[in-house]
Amino acid sequence: MEKNINNLKFIFEPKTVAVIGASKTPGKSGFNVLRNLKSMFKGKIYAVNPNAEEILGFKVYRNVKDIPDEIDTVVIATPAKVVVEVMKDCVEKGVKAAVIVSSGFSEEGEEGRKLQEELVSIIRKHGIRVAGPNTMGVLNTANGFISSLVPFRENDVIPVGNVAFIAQTGLFSGAMLYRFASMKLGISKVAGLGNKIDVTDVEVLEYLAEDEQTKVIAMYIEGIKDGRRFIDVARKVTRKKPVIVLKGGITEAGVKTVVSHTASLTGKLEVFEAACKQAGVLLVRNFDELLDVVKGFAYLPIPKGNRVALAHFTGAGCVMGADTCVKGGLRLAEFTPKTIQTVKEVTPEWHGIRNPLDSWPMIERYGTKVYDVILKAMLEDENVDAVIFCFFATQHYRDIPNLDSLKPKGKPVLFCIEGDVKVALELTEIMEAKGFPVYPFVEKASFVLSYLNKYRENSFSVRIA
Amino acid sequence: MEKNINNLKFIFEPKTVAVIGASKTPGKSGFNVLRNLKSMFKGKIYAVNPNAEEILGFKVYRNVKDIPDEIDTVVIATPAKVVVEVMKDCVEKGVKAAVIVSSGFSEEGEEGRKLQEELVSIIRKHGIRVAGPNTMGVLNTANGFISSLVPFRENDVIPVGNVAFIAQTGLFSGAMLYRFASMKLGISKVAGLGNKIDVTDVEVLEYLAEDEQTKVIAMYIEGIKDGRRFIDVARKVTRKKPVIVLKGGITEAGVKTVVSHTASLTGKLEVFEAACKQAGVLLVRNFDELLDVVKGFAYLPIPKGNRVALAHFTGAGCVMGADTCVKGGLRLAEFTPKTIQTVKEVTPEWHGIRNPLDSWPMIERYGTKVYDVILKAMLEDENVDAVIFCFFATQHYRDIPNLDSLKPKGKPVLFCIEGDVKVALELTEIMEAKGFPVYPFVEKASFVLSYLNKYRENSFSVRIA
Repeated sequence: MEKNINNLKFIFEPKTVAVIGASKTPGKSGFNVLRNLKSMFKGKIYAVNPNAEEILGFKVYRNVKDIPDEIDTVVIATPAKVVVEVMKDCVEKGVKAAVIVSSGFSEEGEEGRKLQEELVSIIRKHGIRVAGPNTMGVLNTANGFISSLVPFRENDVIPVGNVAFIAQTGLFSGAMLYRFASMKLGISKVAGLGNKIDVTDVEVLEYLAEDEQTKVIAMYIEGIKDGRRFIDVARKVTRKKPVIVLKGGITEAGVKTVVSHTASLTGKLEVFEAACKQAGVLLVRNFDELLDVVKGFAYLPIPKGNRVALAHFTGAGCVMGADTCVKGGLRLAEFTPKTIQTVKEVTPEWHGIRNPLDSWPMIERYGTKVYDVILKAMLEDENVDAVIFCFFATQHYRDIPNLDSLKPKGKPVLFCIEGDVKVALELTEIMEAKGFPVYPFVEKASFVLSYLNKYRENSFSVRIA
Repeated sequence: MEKNINNLKFIFEPKTVAVIGASKTPGKSGFNVLRNLKSMFKGKIYAVNPNAEEILGFKVYRNVKDIPDEIDTVVIATPAKVVVEVMKDCVEKGVKAAVIVSSGFSEEGEEGRKLQEELVSIIRKHGIRVAGPNTMGVLNTANGFISSLVPFRENDVIPVGNVAFIAQTGLFSGAMLYRFASMKLGISKVAGLGNKIDVTDVEVLEYLAEDEQTKVIAMYIEGIKDGRRFIDVARKVTRKKPVIVLKGGITEAGVKTVVSHTASLTGKLEVFEAACKQAGVLLVRNFDELLDVVKGFAYLPIPKGNRVALAHFTGAGCVMGADTCVKGGLRLAEFTPKTIQTVKEVTPEWHGIRNPLDSWPMIERYGTKVYDVILKAMLEDENVDAVIFCFFATQHYRDIPNLDSLKPKGKPVLFCIEGDVKVALELTEIMEAKGFPVYPFVEKASFVLSYLNKYRENSFSVRIA
């Protein structure tokens, strides 16, 4: 049957949800999913389990068909071997979407593969939309719908924001959620698609392109089923929003692990890289880079050009920053005479004013108030499209720039705090709460800015094509 | 004149030190250096300044020649233009070594270049050994000798340990020191060589090869003066200890920045890379990698082979870890039947036991006690040379493996904690205090292990040559 974006509505935006395989035992998937829904979901919740009466205050139904209400979406957390039966019940009930968190399908050998085939034949016939199996499914921070089996607790806060994340698997996005939350990086949607027997990355990508809460789309991909269609869709989506992709399964051993993980076909890396480039998709090499780059896009405007102004408190930092910027396709801006004049007023006579700007002699002579002078001058410089400003922090040395008076005027400003790890983390939190992303090394800030610029170049070349 | 390792003795191990250009003004180099020495140095300290009587409780001498004691080493923090005169006095006094922290030499244009030439001609004539200028010089945690102008305070603790760091510049090593300190990563020696008018990286490398306190040598290099000699020396040193190098100035813009920074000639990157490979030197791409890799060598034994056992709580983590290991030259170990049997006892029936091991189904069923079962089985497996074990942490989920009962038997064990950033940092501190390094991503742990293995391969090929 025909699939379209609206079909995914019930995957992300149900009003009534039933947890099938709800469990009384804390730690079990069927318990965690129900508890997470109870604390977050704004719609109606039902629990299903043939062997229980009440769980977490919910009356438990023996079968989904017994529920005296329309069910938009079910979360299935039963053992794999009964999922086929459960799905038949759901179809009979007229359920519109299902998230199957259960594992034990094609990722677990021959028997699982057969179960999965049976499952596919049922859902194909009836058109119910299915995310999974072998996944944690979805999270929508707008309505609190969550199918994750990660044991979130009372005080765990998932911050609402503009980043959507498509992961092949859910547990990955579970740990990722904690990371995002502790970084205070806000989420719009998460989709963990697992074995992808029905809903695919490409469909979710299309859905997220239209999602008003989403500004940046991050993806972890092990395999793409229809590469041609991925490129076509991604090319359209990247005109609207940046899409950042981390690819798993790029070595023989990685590919073997993928097979036992989500049973995807990974394909050749070179082919995938070329396709991403063509579609304006930005590839990163690891989880660390993914988080760095996504944070940059979440906080910052896209620069209008590739001319960067860089300040660092050490000569070595200036060198490493310049190297990373230029390797990434950025150029070091040539300061206007006005900028040089302004900066000169807080610079010892013997010290040259260049880009990158070695700020230590200035700080040593005039104190950390030079931070604001440098930042203002750089931001007002018409030759500058973006600013990277690096300083350091210790237990006793915690001055930060005045962010309230900082008017970026559409120019991205990236900060870097080196020195004491813990103090840097505290200051990072303060500065990011005001909307400026902070990185622990100049190379990271430079790398992220180069990605913002790559997105500008991609968009541009698409527009003129 | 002939230089040898013993010549550097007074650069690192003076018994009497004079600060020339000592200052009363907090924040100024001449103040910070004196205060740092006062709080750390175990030898005798003198202060020199023609316009002061007493600073920080020290009687101040007008000239180094007025000090009624033999002076092993001076730290010069005067303005650049008087350094030549000061050096003449030092030579007359019979001072054996000098660290010149002052800037304003060849890195600052024509006038500075002339000053530097004059300086060189004096020191060449008299054989006094000089580190700098334009540097923060040295730190020796064994005797507390420090020439850094970073404003360390009462509660700043520089941890004593086995990592030596050679940086082209001192400020770099200043911020680096705070980072090391806050990571509780112990330092043996730091050498910031600045413009290198006399003491070179190569000499320090030779010195550190013999230094009993040093197990790992990290270097940040912008330019090498005598590449041939660097290779010859490094080849010998890397048979004894790992040498990890970060190269600055690899793009045209980076090179230009180097010129205004330490006025070094950078040379072609490809040539440098080939030379490092030949010498068994391990190159890293950025500061982040440098810290990760150095930490690994500081804590861990070198593996006896390249067969790694990897456990991660997500399938995606298994894939990314496998990819990174294999890209880095490691192999995924084939578990013995005994290991599989042991692990099976804490694994749900439906879940396969493979390497990498997806541990979530095990944790879900049996709790975090499976950590210890998995670790013990992997470490005792004769097919395994090294272990990477990844788990996750949140505000409410803080279990860590039992490290006291962990007997690595010469096999490196690297941990990775994902999830909440702050909780991970707390647990990292606890685990590293017990001697096990922890990384925030599986790719990082895998990358570091691949470097430990590269060192083994280098050493091996040297031994059989």
